[in-house]
Amino acid sequence: MSDTELDQMTAEDAGELDEDDRLKPEFVRAVLDAVEVGDVERARELVEPLHPADIADLFELTGHENRPRLAHALHDLVDADVFAEMNDYVREDLIDALEPQEVAELAAELDTDDAVAIIEDLDADDQREVLRAMEPDDRAAIEEALSYPEESAGRLMQRELIAVPEHWTVGDAIDYLRRNDDLTTDFWEIFVVDQRHKPIGTLQLSWLLRTPRGIAIADVMKREQTLIPVDMDQEEVALRFQKYALISAAVVDTSGRLVGMITVDDIVHIVQAEAGEDALLLSGAGDGDINEPIRSTVRTRLTWLLINLPTAMIAATIVGLFDERIAKFAVLAQLMGIVSGMGGNAGTQTLAVVVRAIATNQLTSSNTARMIFRELRIAASNGTALGLLVGAGAYVWFGNSSLAIVFGLALFINNIVAGLAGVLVPVTLDRMDVDPAVASSVFVTTCTDSLGFFTFLGLAALWGLGG
Amino acid sequence: MSDTELDQMTAEDAGELDEDDRLKPEFVRAVLDAVEVGDVERARELVEPLHPADIADLFELTGHENRPRLAHALHDLVDADVFAEMNDYVREDLIDALEPQEVAELAAELDTDDAVAIIEDLDADDQREVLRAMEPDDRAAIEEALSYPEESAGRLMQRELIAVPEHWTVGDAIDYLRRNDDLTTDFWEIFVVDQRHKPIGTLQLSWLLRTPRGIAIADVMKREQTLIPVDMDQEEVALRFQKYALISAAVVDTSGRLVGMITVDDIVHIVQAEAGEDALLLSGAGDGDINEPIRSTVRTRLTWLLINLPTAMIAATIVGLFDERIAKFAVLAQLMGIVSGMGGNAGTQTLAVVVRAIATNQLTSSNTARMIFRELRIAASNGTALGLLVGAGAYVWFGNSSLAIVFGLALFINNIVAGLAGVLVPVTLDRMDVDPAVASSVFVTTCTDSLGFFTFLGLAALWGLGG
Repeated sequence: MSDTELDQMTAEDAGELDEDDRLKPEFVRAVLDAVEVGDVERARELVEPLHPADIADLFELTGHENRPRLAHALHDLVDADVFAEMNDYVREDLIDALEPQEVAELAAELDTDDAVAIIEDLDADDQREVLRAMEPDDRAAIEEALSYPEESAGRLMQRELIAVPEHWTVGDAIDYLRRNDDLTTDFWEIFVVDQRHKPIGTLQLSWLLRTPRGIAIADVMKREQTLIPVDMDQEEVALRFQKYALISAAVVDTSGRLVGMITVDDIVHIVQAEAGEDALLLSGAGDGDINEPIRSTVRTRLTWLLINLPTAMIAATIVGLFDERIAKFAVLAQLMGIVSGMGGNAGTQTLAVVVRAIATNQLTSSNTARMIFRELRIAASNGTALGLLVGAGAYVWFGNSSLAIVFGLALFINNIVAGLAGVLVPVTLDRMDVDPAVASSVFVTTCTDSLGFFTFLGLAALWGLGG
Repeated sequence: MSDTELDQMTAEDAGELDEDDRLKPEFVRAVLDAVEVGDVERARELVEPLHPADIADLFELTGHENRPRLAHALHDLVDADVFAEMNDYVREDLIDALEPQEVAELAAELDTDDAVAIIEDLDADDQREVLRAMEPDDRAAIEEALSYPEESAGRLMQRELIAVPEHWTVGDAIDYLRRNDDLTTDFWEIFVVDQRHKPIGTLQLSWLLRTPRGIAIADVMKREQTLIPVDMDQEEVALRFQKYALISAAVVDTSGRLVGMITVDDIVHIVQAEAGEDALLLSGAGDGDINEPIRSTVRTRLTWLLINLPTAMIAATIVGLFDERIAKFAVLAQLMGIVSGMGGNAGTQTLAVVVRAIATNQLTSSNTARMIFRELRIAASNGTALGLLVGAGAYVWFGNSSLAIVFGLALFINNIVAGLAGVLVPVTLDRMDVDPAVASSVFVTTCTDSLGFFTFLGLAALWGLGG
């Protein structure tokens, strides 16, 4: 095999993808142009060599209005694997155009977890129809999965797994795998179960391969294993995979019986989604999916802005208390925004760190006190530096030493407020079982804005500025 | 095995962990108390049953000042696996206290990637000493890894892998694995290479197990595979693993030769870190590690606040332009913060969504125009709703229709500014190869603050408010 041929094996060099594994805009354009002029042959020729994940990307990069047409042109290239890789909203666009029978056929080709991902998003009527069109076995598996809460291990797991009894030998297990063609091929470990189908150990395939056939499974299996309760939230499942570096894990029902398996490739998506959602939730952008229908995005974002409006109004009311003083000394209006804004920036920093530490289980009740103390020290350092700097700046600019002192002092105090609120708000929300990423920033902003104005204008009043 | 015994196998029920797999505060307290009163026996008894990842957590939950003492008490329980699981800063605390010879021994027990993670953080002198104390083979492997850029595939990969020639049969491969005891056991796929050691295919172990011995490897291996260039950035490696649902992948040097393997369990940590850093970078909190020495945290955060200071000053200067108007009509000072603040909130929403879409390769030049249009529509909807609402509110509150119109209109305009800046700033930075998560928010805030004040106060001037 020549170097050139070898190079072609990496998707990157195949011509359709740029160096970041993204489809090149020229390529997307070429496919869409071909579809537009009705040259289905050409479009299929371009898309055929793509990996299912890239075909899914092609649909995501195509505007909402052109997706059904593209799907029509490429129909048999858009198989179950492509649907499994597709963004939820984009998939919905396409699934909506299919008959229940067609959806049922797609779902039948997939592992339970991928089939569930497609079917769970359908509305109740469509769901019923699709399930009715499926084979009884597949249907039962999916109905059971749907009986578990959304985003739980029960929805994530696949039923297809290899379980062997503890009294077998390594040879028995290998023969069983060789002889049964209808077993799943996507597995990395086999599970050892007792007579009541409760998992008692796991065996990595590399161990199975390297152990003599006569040895008892029970003697080589790893007895310590991480079991996932079927109703565990997917975020916790992901943290557990991460913490214990798992490749696959057994899912057990409430009586401890093995009911499914979760593999790490499904977890990577969840880790990505859960870790990335902090920035989105903190900003009130919901799940921030760029494929979400615009009306639903507007609703999510507007709700958040409306929730923040009272915060802004409280701050405005506080400013209103000092109306007359501002009228006499308008410089106060100029500087007050710096106090609240810099406090807001400092509060956002602390908040981002604390929310992340809570989400990754690094901040627990064992170290909360240490964390508060740490943030206070940081706030005091930064507040001192900034307070001195802006105070000096104000003195040079306005030549008013009282103003300089009030300004610098207010900035210092607002930094402390920001540091305290940045820790206490998310920690308190977390103890109340409210997601700190969703709700914290309104409260922290309220503190830094309102108290920032109040401290600055209040100190100005005490010092008799503009009085 | 009874139910009770089975239950004990899951870490959660073992008593030290809470339902989120975090060490219970009572447990941490008990260990530290035992260490404090010198009851080393008791401390070791408590810690012994823990998973290495939990022992690492124990150190993270312990204050900086108590870590060396804890390490001393638990010394032989803190093995290479525990070090591999530990937060970088906490590990440094402990490694600093060790002799180079001890560090070398620790590193020798680990796979290349974990050993590199420990050694790369040492300062140059210590690094040299540790390397000198290692066996020549290990040393060569680590020196080579260190020759690759930080956060590249070359640092992440392990050298321990299974590669077989294409002319072998399945039986040859199985015998090879059985007969060579010193091969790695942590592998999930084997790589098939040509005579120049270039990878030409992969074979999942489940396939190897289920294929008759006489079949040629070349006939069952998967020829399409994703190769990772040794100098690829870890963020791109993570996206590639995710996109193609990889369990392991071959790393190749510039001439296409197989030099290492990356497995998904190492990738999960990177996905978590890279996806989670958006919220931290957007807020200017650096890597946001709660174990970072406080001085370095202060420096990172203060730098960010100082960068934001000119933004606040520009906004203040704009307010200053309208000094006299504000002095005559102080209500303007009260409301201007609402215009800038609500614009800031809307801008932050758009920014969070766009930064995330760029980081996950969802926003490319193929759909940028569509994204800008989408955000404009959202901004227009939200701006209209909010503008009407606050305009009506201001009319009721102040009974001044000109003020109401100016206020509502300014809020509408600032929403549009926020939506545009929220897309254009990160997209432009990304094209200039600047990380949009790091630098965007200063520019967006400058737009929403300064233009918010300018629009509101400027419109007020045009309408003759306070004139």
